[in-house]
Amino acid sequence: MTRLRLDLAYIGTHFHGWQLQPNCRTVQGCLEQALERVCTQPVRVHGAGRTDSGVHALNQVAHCDIPSARTGVPWLRTLNSLLPSDMAVTSARWVRPDFHARFTSIGKVYSYILWTRKDYVLPQRRPFVWPVGPLNLVFLQAGASVLCGEHDFTSFQNVGTEVASAVRTLGRVEVQGTQSMDEVVCTFEADGFLKQMVRNLVGALVALGRCELELSGLKRILESRDRTLAPATAPPQGLCLEKVLYPVDSSGQMS
Amino acid sequence: MTRLRLDLAYIGTHFHGWQLQPNCRTVQGCLEQALERVCTQPVRVHGAGRTDSGVHALNQVAHCDIPSARTGVPWLRTLNSLLPSDMAVTSARWVRPDFHARFTSIGKVYSYILWTRKDYVLPQRRPFVWPVGPLNLVFLQAGASVLCGEHDFTSFQNVGTEVASAVRTLGRVEVQGTQSMDEVVCTFEADGFLKQMVRNLVGALVALGRCELELSGLKRILESRDRTLAPATAPPQGLCLEKVLYPVDSSGQMS
Repeated sequence: MTRLRLDLAYIGTHFHGWQLQPNCRTVQGCLEQALERVCTQPVRVHGAGRTDSGVHALNQVAHCDIPSARTGVPWLRTLNSLLPSDMAVTSARWVRPDFHARFTSIGKVYSYILWTRKDYVLPQRRPFVWPVGPLNLVFLQAGASVLCGEHDFTSFQNVGTEVASAVRTLGRVEVQGTQSMDEVVCTFEADGFLKQMVRNLVGALVALGRCELELSGLKRILESRDRTLAPATAPPQGLCLEKVLYPVDSSGQMS
Repeated sequence: MTRLRLDLAYIGTHFHGWQLQPNCRTVQGCLEQALERVCTQPVRVHGAGRTDSGVHALNQVAHCDIPSARTGVPWLRTLNSLLPSDMAVTSARWVRPDFHARFTSIGKVYSYILWTRKDYVLPQRRPFVWPVGPLNLVFLQAGASVLCGEHDFTSFQNVGTEVASAVRTLGRVEVQGTQSMDEVVCTFEADGFLKQMVRNLVGALVALGRCELELSGLKRILESRDRTLAPATAPPQGLCLEKVLYPVDSSGQMS
């Protein structure tokens, strides 16, 4: 067996998320199916993160172990010829056996795109944005700096999730308008994310930008560690997994 | 009756082009249907240009005449609430009765996007690009300067088309690689375009970029006025109507 790292891009719209589920079209499921066809045996794939139903990825990372008899396969080309058109492998490389897409990862970068025009959504952008109408960008940016840093993000974690600790470090929260001014891009980088954390944070930022929530209110919500006090979760289609971060010398690539 | 100018964006993938056709889903057809629903009578729409099946638009322009009883309708919002999600009205404004989307127009700008990665196409970009693999950008740019200017473009017009003259002036042909280097964007601005002219020009530029055609060959094809000598037509999905040009003082807007 040799370990293969796969970098993936997908449009989340028609997937029931990353994770394998019976009778559901998932990214992991489609990928395992393609791998099984080439290897003529089941191949388990491990993803860096489980994107939710409807969430997109530009650079998801996964790994799997390939039987020795198949190490000669040109994996990038072969997998892309078998995968559906709404997903693609953008890189396939052999890695050291101790590389693990999820456990070796030291963080992730997500983007969330807001559509701020009032009277229309550009059809070309519709699958990738949340149409929220006009926003006060300065309020979103102020909110971003409140969220940045190490916090207990219980208030932005979906109720019912079990994790040892809800403390995460948001190393970067950026809010920027695009040149056309039609969109606002929110970028989140952290050592780890709780379930639906980005979408819950975006829900709060949008409330700020609509003047439905004040900065002091956001601080109170964060400190309260009470999900029920925070604004509603933003829909999935604005969210995109932009990058999975690995230690510089542990990208897993074999030398 | 009052004349209404409509600016439109659409994803061409699931339309049989702009022009109304019986039993076909067309952009004009969907727009006329929405207008008829509001006006409770048939409304004829005139487009600036008839984009082919599968061709996209970011700024198509059309006009129509609205019965006086409906001039109070908030057209932008109303039409967008009735139109399918792969098209949208981006602007609706009353114009002078002599404004004509097609005849007042003095030119158009089209873009054509080439995908130049060899082993994959990003799913997010697939509906909007022609995957051609690696190209020599310098050769495309040299070809662009040959095509620029006033020429008889018979060699790049589909056979069987009847026009009084195939002379057109390409005021601008730009070929630029995107920052990611995954795409090459070709931009064409002209006073008018012949049938499938941009797609035929792109077919020739790609042949240059693949070293299947030399610059002298391109010149000979242009001078020959013989469509059968030119490379094949590029597929529709890379093409997008970017802008329709009107004289500065004749945008038709009522003052």
